[in-house]
Amino acid sequence: MKKIANILILSILVSSCSTNKENTVEADFNAANKINLLPFVNPFIGTKNMGHTFPGATSPFGMVQLSPETNQQPMFIDGKYNPDTYKYCAGYQYDDSTIYGFSHTHFSGTGHSDLGDFLVMPTTGSLNLEPGDAAIPQSGYHSQYSHENEFAEPGYYKVDLDDYKIKAELTTSNRVGFHQYTFPKSKDSHIILDLISNIYNYDGKNVWTFIRVENDSLVTGYRQTKGWARTKKVFFAMEFSKPFKSYGHKKYDDVKYNGFYRRFNEEENFPEMAGKNIRAYFNFNTEENEQIKIKFALSNTSTAGALKNLEAEIPHWDFNKTKEETQQKWNNELNKIVVETETIAQKETFYTALYHTMLGPIIYEDVDGSYRGLDQNIHLSNEFTNYTVFSLWDTYRALHPLFNIIQPARNNDMVKSMLAHHDQSVHKMLPVWSHYANENWCMVGYHSVTVIADAIAKGTTDVDIDQALKASENTATLTYFDGIGEYMKLGYVPEDKSAASVSKTLEYAFDDWCIAQIAKKAGNEEVYDRYINRSKNYKNVYDEKIGYMRPKLANGEWRKEFDPIDTHGQGFIEGNALNYGLYVPQEIDNMIEMMGGKDKFSKHLDYIFNTEIEDKYIEKNEDITRDGIIGNYVQGNEPGHHMPYLYNWTNHPFKTQERVRMIMNTMYSNGEDGLCGNDDAGQMSAWYVFSALGFYPVTPASNEYAIGSPMINNAIINLENGKTISIKTVNQGKENVYVEKVDVNGNIIDGFSLKYDEIKNGGEITFHLTNQPRTN
Amino acid sequence: MKKIANILILSILVSSCSTNKENTVEADFNAANKINLLPFVNPFIGTKNMGHTFPGATSPFGMVQLSPETNQQPMFIDGKYNPDTYKYCAGYQYDDSTIYGFSHTHFSGTGHSDLGDFLVMPTTGSLNLEPGDAAIPQSGYHSQYSHENEFAEPGYYKVDLDDYKIKAELTTSNRVGFHQYTFPKSKDSHIILDLISNIYNYDGKNVWTFIRVENDSLVTGYRQTKGWARTKKVFFAMEFSKPFKSYGHKKYDDVKYNGFYRRFNEEENFPEMAGKNIRAYFNFNTEENEQIKIKFALSNTSTAGALKNLEAEIPHWDFNKTKEETQQKWNNELNKIVVETETIAQKETFYTALYHTMLGPIIYEDVDGSYRGLDQNIHLSNEFTNYTVFSLWDTYRALHPLFNIIQPARNNDMVKSMLAHHDQSVHKMLPVWSHYANENWCMVGYHSVTVIADAIAKGTTDVDIDQALKASENTATLTYFDGIGEYMKLGYVPEDKSAASVSKTLEYAFDDWCIAQIAKKAGNEEVYDRYINRSKNYKNVYDEKIGYMRPKLANGEWRKEFDPIDTHGQGFIEGNALNYGLYVPQEIDNMIEMMGGKDKFSKHLDYIFNTEIEDKYIEKNEDITRDGIIGNYVQGNEPGHHMPYLYNWTNHPFKTQERVRMIMNTMYSNGEDGLCGNDDAGQMSAWYVFSALGFYPVTPASNEYAIGSPMINNAIINLENGKTISIKTVNQGKENVYVEKVDVNGNIIDGFSLKYDEIKNGGEITFHLTNQPRTN
Repeated sequence: MKKIANILILSILVSSCSTNKENTVEADFNAANKINLLPFVNPFIGTKNMGHTFPGATSPFGMVQLSPETNQQPMFIDGKYNPDTYKYCAGYQYDDSTIYGFSHTHFSGTGHSDLGDFLVMPTTGSLNLEPGDAAIPQSGYHSQYSHENEFAEPGYYKVDLDDYKIKAELTTSNRVGFHQYTFPKSKDSHIILDLISNIYNYDGKNVWTFIRVENDSLVTGYRQTKGWARTKKVFFAMEFSKPFKSYGHKKYDDVKYNGFYRRFNEEENFPEMAGKNIRAYFNFNTEENEQIKIKFALSNTSTAGALKNLEAEIPHWDFNKTKEETQQKWNNELNKIVVETETIAQKETFYTALYHTMLGPIIYEDVDGSYRGLDQNIHLSNEFTNYTVFSLWDTYRALHPLFNIIQPARNNDMVKSMLAHHDQSVHKMLPVWSHYANENWCMVGYHSVTVIADAIAKGTTDVDIDQALKASENTATLTYFDGIGEYMKLGYVPEDKSAASVSKTLEYAFDDWCIAQIAKKAGNEEVYDRYINRSKNYKNVYDEKIGYMRPKLANGEWRKEFDPIDTHGQGFIEGNALNYGLYVPQEIDNMIEMMGGKDKFSKHLDYIFNTEIEDKYIEKNEDITRDGIIGNYVQGNEPGHHMPYLYNWTNHPFKTQERVRMIMNTMYSNGEDGLCGNDDAGQMSAWYVFSALGFYPVTPASNEYAIGSPMINNAIINLENGKTISIKTVNQGKENVYVEKVDVNGNIIDGFSLKYDEIKNGGEITFHLTNQPRTN
Repeated sequence: MKKIANILILSILVSSCSTNKENTVEADFNAANKINLLPFVNPFIGTKNMGHTFPGATSPFGMVQLSPETNQQPMFIDGKYNPDTYKYCAGYQYDDSTIYGFSHTHFSGTGHSDLGDFLVMPTTGSLNLEPGDAAIPQSGYHSQYSHENEFAEPGYYKVDLDDYKIKAELTTSNRVGFHQYTFPKSKDSHIILDLISNIYNYDGKNVWTFIRVENDSLVTGYRQTKGWARTKKVFFAMEFSKPFKSYGHKKYDDVKYNGFYRRFNEEENFPEMAGKNIRAYFNFNTEENEQIKIKFALSNTSTAGALKNLEAEIPHWDFNKTKEETQQKWNNELNKIVVETETIAQKETFYTALYHTMLGPIIYEDVDGSYRGLDQNIHLSNEFTNYTVFSLWDTYRALHPLFNIIQPARNNDMVKSMLAHHDQSVHKMLPVWSHYANENWCMVGYHSVTVIADAIAKGTTDVDIDQALKASENTATLTYFDGIGEYMKLGYVPEDKSAASVSKTLEYAFDDWCIAQIAKKAGNEEVYDRYINRSKNYKNVYDEKIGYMRPKLANGEWRKEFDPIDTHGQGFIEGNALNYGLYVPQEIDNMIEMMGGKDKFSKHLDYIFNTEIEDKYIEKNEDITRDGIIGNYVQGNEPGHHMPYLYNWTNHPFKTQERVRMIMNTMYSNGEDGLCGNDDAGQMSAWYVFSALGFYPVTPASNEYAIGSPMINNAIINLENGKTISIKTVNQGKENVYVEKVDVNGNIIDGFSLKYDEIKNGGEITFHLTNQPRTN
């Protein structure tokens, strides 16, 4: 009862948001009345196997994500792709026993990667600039470490670097990484700044790097890389708490021409270093337990911008102050959903999932609002805060819908960031998968439109609807993009013109439905009709004869070779006809009808969940691993995330309830291996957060959530408008996974659909649970 | 008489300068009252042999210098330096018969090179993106041309590209190149944009290139190169007068990883191109005589900056309008000195020299004052116009002193640009040889201080003197730069620590004298004394026993191996003890005394001029060629430029008069081979302009010019302050090279020194010439 009482106090004390630009999204609850939720976040969840999360320090949606790298896998070995690359999407693998240093940019949970900018490593003893082999202790500057001496919580990470007897501590503000290294006594203490180190590194990835030693304790510079982001530039300003006694660098380039720089000994104490592949070092004498601190600011515009960020965000050397401020921000964010659960493990799983929904998209602008646009020019975000890292094929499903409940102000800024991206795009296209002022074109669909439509449907954005509609239409009619031209002509993407044609057709059709929703709000009937028509294109890839979605050729014939179970090359991407083939969230009833009716469909779902898929069908997909599979269902990847909820549209909603509880219990945990696949920039975690609360946005941009079976005992969602949604369960228990009835604001609702309108201004939801399925 | 009358009218009609930022430096004479001096400029002078000038179009001090490239020499062949590189410092060689296209950035007359950004070439027929071999017609996109169908004047260049029957015409504004191509009828007309082409090109010079096809007639992009400038970025916006029907590019990179761009056919009609080595093309149908025009704007900040420059400077498609405006600017500049000469050839030589003094430094900022600083950040030049290309070892001698007479406003901006460079320098150093937001560290000395001191001495700058002094001191005490540390400790640069030690010691000593002059103006006696002391360091490298300046070792001993005639490795750079050893402009009398007195010194000069140097002594010096040599004197290079005037300090000033006339007559002409060595960013031409007018700034930063023997008949120098200096000769003639007397403002002067103070507010100088040397 004590805890519940606390929650109630909290819900009363929620204060309204300030209107300060950045603070709008950092609810200024009175910290004194907050429950300390940090202990329930375990940043190591997902760091083992393929979760691709990182344990390092960052602030909510912060630009700096400062985290250890535990290996240095080259992307290619002897010209061939090195499959171990994939393990290191976020730089860290829990099973490793070495640390190579701490770099400032990471993705959380992506299925392809980049970044790892600006690796900093403290060492002692004879200077070694080679990273070395992880398998051979002391073969390079890396250090051994053990998990006993490692600790992480939101905004803070600590580890002992055993090889050097150095304690490393990290925290961050939004744009500045704060390092605190406690050294032993040594005349040979070093800080290495490795500008070669990259995530998804290959020879040639570095385009240019540049370092200026401004004075004996301040260094600036930048790096341009050609990776997943083709023209990516990150600038930095690095300030030391203590002057270095000397410094230098080694250049690993084949230097054909060095102009008149050849007159200098550039390698030692020469303040301008530039080249493609550089490792710099800074030397110190240290006393026993002497701390050397580093403030490492990033900018995406310039070194001047990085300096501005440094000065504005951390104008002092008090590590704990920054840590406390950032942790308070985290606690404020976590307190947006206050839950009680049966077990601590569930609570840890929940809050870590919630934490993982706030590691992207990230703020992508200097403190003064300057940011690098997609056109590589510097823009000013007068009217919004600019964000980057849009993994939209993943995140449109549940992450952005979750933001519309707990982060509407940020989500509004994200929508505006997408529109700015469109305006700066030479294609006049909204983001597909974009990061760091680049479009990386990963995955299929044009799901920005879904995010925009969802924000408009939920009333959480103040963008100009006509402008949003225009940008969406531009995107949906870019004929040279990924089969859109053919799609517009034929009503489907033909497999012989554009692979993964069925996935594309299905995703486009749903996106088109979303555009129609925007058009409806804009009062533009003509556009509405056009896109509603397009939204029915899913029918064109359904082969009634075999009962599956199936790749069709440009001549109108079905492709002959077809295996509905294979996840590779069968018209689907990261899925197959069995699971991805059920993706028609805009017309679920019609789809079920088309596929033979509710009972047949329900059985099809049973078949998927109950029939084990053979290895050969998934082994070509990096993004699908055994961990995340139930039968033919893949929780570890997105195309099926709505599927457990589809039973709601059949006569067996209780199977949804069974499934979602089973998935929460078996596919998520509070261990390092607690994610069954890439967290996918928060989508996997958002699925969990929604499901744990008892509902899920099967159809973003609609007014409805599908009801599942809540895992929590009780929850308070603190909305930015000051209202709260209170969720209660009656008869919660391990066996009581079935929903007998749902009471929303005092009314028992019909069916298993929760309306957004009923909760947007707060409300009470009570789930009455039972161990008996409601089979009627 | 008619011409003289015109001149007089002009001198009366000179109007005062406006105060508009850019226009301050573009005297707004009433054009109607100007003599058309354009016909006397032959931009081809210096394009044959090693003048390293370019014939293309540019505006005075313009950022765009749009000129043909006649070859594509790689800088290295089989890993070895290709000596033909040097011929193409400015991209054009008169003896070539091919044109590869027209690029937008060039140096005029430098002895090392870079640039050649953004080569544009129109072609017809089957598209060929390979440059091809100059020796093999039609082996690539290059075209044959002949000088009969080529024409150049200030601000305009025209040539027929014979292989394609295309007439190419070029003009420019300050920041925008304007191309006008007249095509034949063809369904296969192309404009090639070659981003691989570079001057001083080597594999790896391109760091990154980026092109965006904004719409069917507008393209933007940038290139970053690692050349003489280590981190050089140039941005562009390229607008076509007619939409292209299709476009594409070829990438010449070894692409290991192309992210998800692999999903596109990037090569054709895909609007984003990026990579290290790219050639793009744009296709057109053309009718007979159809003109396709291109406006090609540069920026050093961004593509947005380039677009701004494009729109601000040439908002129309009227090629002739831009040509006329730019030519009027040229005529205004050329009218700053209106001369009459005995022959047309002399006049052409004179005006082309004057033209060549206005091709650098160049404006280096966008129309809104944004520019890229040395720190690679974007700065705003609120209080001045920012310039780049400072070839200071050359230009401090006569070019900047000339500017102090005819371009004081620009020179003031140049001084401010130097101080901004200092402020942005991580070394806190003034420019040595800087271009495009980079210091390239070429040649010896810190001659910015001389330019600053000269401007202060002449009263033509409004910079803060204390700030100028501080910057000069910072520069002169940078211990790790080029032997300065040893120089400060020992009083000379020791050859065993820093090669070319005697040249450095002499140049530093003179620069130090200049700093002392600044200190004097600042009223800072302590600094004055310190630098006056340093200015006497020349004595420390004079070996009395042998009567030569000589390399000394750190231990105080003279280096044993020493050949005073060899120009390579004897303590001098681009010179020897005979000529460069006479460089003590701050204490000429003392130097002569030290070297044995006036007669001995005069004989030494005779020896230098009269004794032929052997090939073996000069062949290792790219910068010294036979063309520019008289005995052991090298007019084709800078260290000796003051030498012909040194006779003035002996008992034989008439030998100065003989020599300078002889040099003007034999080392300069109006032919393509009219320069006897690199024009060195205008220094060679400034020598001519001064000498032709009858005086020369032997000691910049002093109040004096040494009198020589004027080549002109009469001259009017139109000062920016509205005053004029009228120079007249009496008895001018081929044989009458001797100066009998000089009348300044009505007084016959003693000796052969002209005081700046006597002419700065205008005045009249009359040279009385004779064929009899004044031997007393």
